[in-house]
Amino acid sequence: MRVALGISYDGRGYHGWQSQLSGHTVQDRLESALSQLADQPISTVCAGRTDTGVHALMQVVHFDTTALRRDVSWVRGANAHLPRDISVEWAQQVPEAFHSRANALTRRYAYSLYVSPVRPSVHNGRVGWAMYALDIERMRAAAALLIGQHDFSSFRAAQCQALSAVKDMRSITIAQRGAFLRFEFEANAFLHHMIRNIMGCLVAIGQGKQAPHWISDVLHARQRRGAAPTFAPDGLYFLGPRYDSRWGLPERTAAYDGLP
Amino acid sequence: MRVALGISYDGRGYHGWQSQLSGHTVQDRLESALSQLADQPISTVCAGRTDTGVHALMQVVHFDTTALRRDVSWVRGANAHLPRDISVEWAQQVPEAFHSRANALTRRYAYSLYVSPVRPSVHNGRVGWAMYALDIERMRAAAALLIGQHDFSSFRAAQCQALSAVKDMRSITIAQRGAFLRFEFEANAFLHHMIRNIMGCLVAIGQGKQAPHWISDVLHARQRRGAAPTFAPDGLYFLGPRYDSRWGLPERTAAYDGLP
Repeated sequence: MRVALGISYDGRGYHGWQSQLSGHTVQDRLESALSQLADQPISTVCAGRTDTGVHALMQVVHFDTTALRRDVSWVRGANAHLPRDISVEWAQQVPEAFHSRANALTRRYAYSLYVSPVRPSVHNGRVGWAMYALDIERMRAAAALLIGQHDFSSFRAAQCQALSAVKDMRSITIAQRGAFLRFEFEANAFLHHMIRNIMGCLVAIGQGKQAPHWISDVLHARQRRGAAPTFAPDGLYFLGPRYDSRWGLPERTAAYDGLP
Repeated sequence: MRVALGISYDGRGYHGWQSQLSGHTVQDRLESALSQLADQPISTVCAGRTDTGVHALMQVVHFDTTALRRDVSWVRGANAHLPRDISVEWAQQVPEAFHSRANALTRRYAYSLYVSPVRPSVHNGRVGWAMYALDIERMRAAAALLIGQHDFSSFRAAQCQALSAVKDMRSITIAQRGAFLRFEFEANAFLHHMIRNIMGCLVAIGQGKQAPHWISDVLHARQRRGAAPTFAPDGLYFLGPRYDSRWGLPERTAAYDGLP
């Protein structure tokens, strides 16, 4: 049978999602926990890989197994074997046709930015940091220029393995709570470092170093040269994929309300 | 001259505030940074000691030095020598009469509680955890019974060094944001483990294990026996002391808005 899981994690302690020989990745820890629980080797496929230091509120994976467990037993059993910075939030048996990556219609990410002359301490590792005040309206004007289908090569890391750099950006929103700005992005898919590279540009515009329309110049150049530096992974959270409602999978977790 | 500093820290990596031979405390790190900056040994006095794993948004300390530095130089210089989970938020020269502990009129703490069948992962180390739904009105009714001047011996740790267990609880508030409950406490002073012990009782009442008035029985017993277990330090934040406005010291920091 095929099982889908929703996974949350604090990315600080891991070398990203994807398995490595080192074993210090979220996938390694998850598969180890599931394999112990199922008493057979389990391999997972995820909706969206995350980099070192990037967090997830709802990574979705699927795996196939002959082990019979109730949904709630996958959750409790896996959590008993997982370190405390990784949790299985839910488990649901799904049809064989379900594929966590191929069926994802869109992916959503949040970037939390702390705007303060003093660096974060209590929130360190969980927020990006901007030393100077940012003009939100300028950043919103720039973000609007990225909406729609574009070649996002300018915001792509050199090591990106995507076949195409053309992605469809559905929305970018910016909300403020005191000294914290929350940027939320939704697109059909994202390139490697794409959000962290966009963040670098938006912050440069918010600081007044560049005009809002400069982000269009960067976009149309279709090369990294000229864009702002990649922003820190600390404030980046994978909020999760969206699937067709026929799969009946949860779209969010309770942990969302506690984001900085 | 005498200088006051506002300090914030993520308490997870430290054996609490107070200096130990091990050197793994916030005070050790702060004094080491200040001593390097001042080029002379600096000893600090704090407004309220915190335990292992407890965080602070605004610990206040004072120290005396013959080193002449501008306020902004104490902030930037100390932060350059501090690890990234401790920040000096502000520095202000104060009269010799100012004493961070003796002059504190009240202290404020927050306790962040995550209510979810699944343990926290993204927020691990930063929130307490309750597996079952809690009735907020029952907890508010119980909290109201603690307001005023009482002998809080029932909520006092065995190793508490306070001369008197009589403290004046000024307010306890409970606010909800999704799955997160924020408890805020203000009192003239707190005993060792007092808030974590009160939290244990409030959660037992919120779960329906005890009636709200049971907390009065616990309070009047004036002994730990009979109270609920001490809650985890993870969700506890020292929000800071309040001083008479004549000292002109800041009462809060920007980091507050990012609390879970």
